[in-house]
Amino acid sequence: MTYLTGFHAIEERIKSGGGAGPLLVAKAGPRAREIVDLAVDRKIQVNRVGTHELDRLAPDHRGIALYTEDVGAGNEASLEGFLTGLGEQKDALVVVLDEITDPHNYGAILRSCDQFGADLVITRHRRIAKHAETVAQTSAGAVSWVPVAETPNLPRAVEQLKEADFWVYGADMTGEAVWERDLRGRVAIILGGEGTGISRLLRENCDAMVAIPSKGRIDSLNVSVAAGVLFYELTRQRAKK
Amino acid sequence: MTYLTGFHAIEERIKSGGGAGPLLVAKAGPRAREIVDLAVDRKIQVNRVGTHELDRLAPDHRGIALYTEDVGAGNEASLEGFLTGLGEQKDALVVVLDEITDPHNYGAILRSCDQFGADLVITRHRRIAKHAETVAQTSAGAVSWVPVAETPNLPRAVEQLKEADFWVYGADMTGEAVWERDLRGRVAIILGGEGTGISRLLRENCDAMVAIPSKGRIDSLNVSVAAGVLFYELTRQRAKK
Repeated sequence: MTYLTGFHAIEERIKSGGGAGPLLVAKAGPRAREIVDLAVDRKIQVNRVGTHELDRLAPDHRGIALYTEDVGAGNEASLEGFLTGLGEQKDALVVVLDEITDPHNYGAILRSCDQFGADLVITRHRRIAKHAETVAQTSAGAVSWVPVAETPNLPRAVEQLKEADFWVYGADMTGEAVWERDLRGRVAIILGGEGTGISRLLRENCDAMVAIPSKGRIDSLNVSVAAGVLFYELTRQRAKK
Repeated sequence: MTYLTGFHAIEERIKSGGGAGPLLVAKAGPRAREIVDLAVDRKIQVNRVGTHELDRLAPDHRGIALYTEDVGAGNEASLEGFLTGLGEQKDALVVVLDEITDPHNYGAILRSCDQFGADLVITRHRRIAKHAETVAQTSAGAVSWVPVAETPNLPRAVEQLKEADFWVYGADMTGEAVWERDLRGRVAIILGGEGTGISRLLRENCDAMVAIPSKGRIDSLNVSVAAGVLFYELTRQRAKK
């Protein structure tokens, strides 16, 4: 359980219908009042509380806080269910996260997955429970929307994707410039943790490695920025014809 | 003044020669020992301190901390100096930050500026002093490299850029798809704060607005991800010629 305090995160969570509440209200400005109205509309319990009590329960609140058992409850998915539902669909994007444990990066990647319409995220650890609030805030609520499948065995998941005609790309500085690659069709993109990169077993499962050409003194892009760039390139190629 | 504690940030700061020290050392593992060697090599004073003392001075240290008067001292630049030095150079990228005050976003944008070789960053507030350490960490040290010019008058700076034949793009969801635009030559990209966007006066100064097409339920990309995508598109176009 945790308390969501970001206005955006609370709002998206209520809209997702993922089950949450009560909404605790200490002091509501215009933006918070809109959210209270939304909560009432969606039949979520609203409780008045004192500012001191809210300070204690959710120290970074801005007047309101939403109680929730599990921050990402709206979005549980399974790879098998996803593949079955895919049918004859030609284009698809699956994002495989290999040890992305920083909650800011995880949240920002989920937000970009929402923006660029990723169909599924696969990760070993769906819940970074200790940092649920940071993930919710950084994702601007996308944690409630984007379908995430959790699996202990990522190499096996990648094999299943390949059996379903996905082309699997690993993001790695040693790869070919991503703009030289055809990213249409069924594509999976594997992102590794900052510093560690993609683990050996997963690397061996990739059809190819792709890089974002750069010329900096620092060694690489932030992983959430790299993710956004790769999703963008895929979107651009699909829009161009 | 502040203490840098991230290994990457300390290392980049020492390499930049921007003036810093002493390096305080409480307990040095292999990675920290490399940095101590580097500091000795660069004639930076190294002081042994107790772990308790370092805990007090720099609570998030990992054995070492670098004292510095000003986190971004290595990178002060002026728009006038930059334009004079530009000469006949055909391609250039200037990034204008309009109220990007979140230290994570500011740091991540500086890191991407380094990666994609931005020539200059212009901002109203070069120092987000209270969060200097967060900026240094998030930028992975790029805060020591990337040239940043501070000016109280951004619209005037944009006028100067236009006089120097820069084409000025504002990043905005209402704009044209960025891949439809020619980003070669001298280009300035204006990024506005999350939520607020680009201020009216600056919008009116843009030659055009560009958007990153998306289809999410959330309203927009994180601003540092959007910045990375725009720099990438510019890099891609210039590489494809």
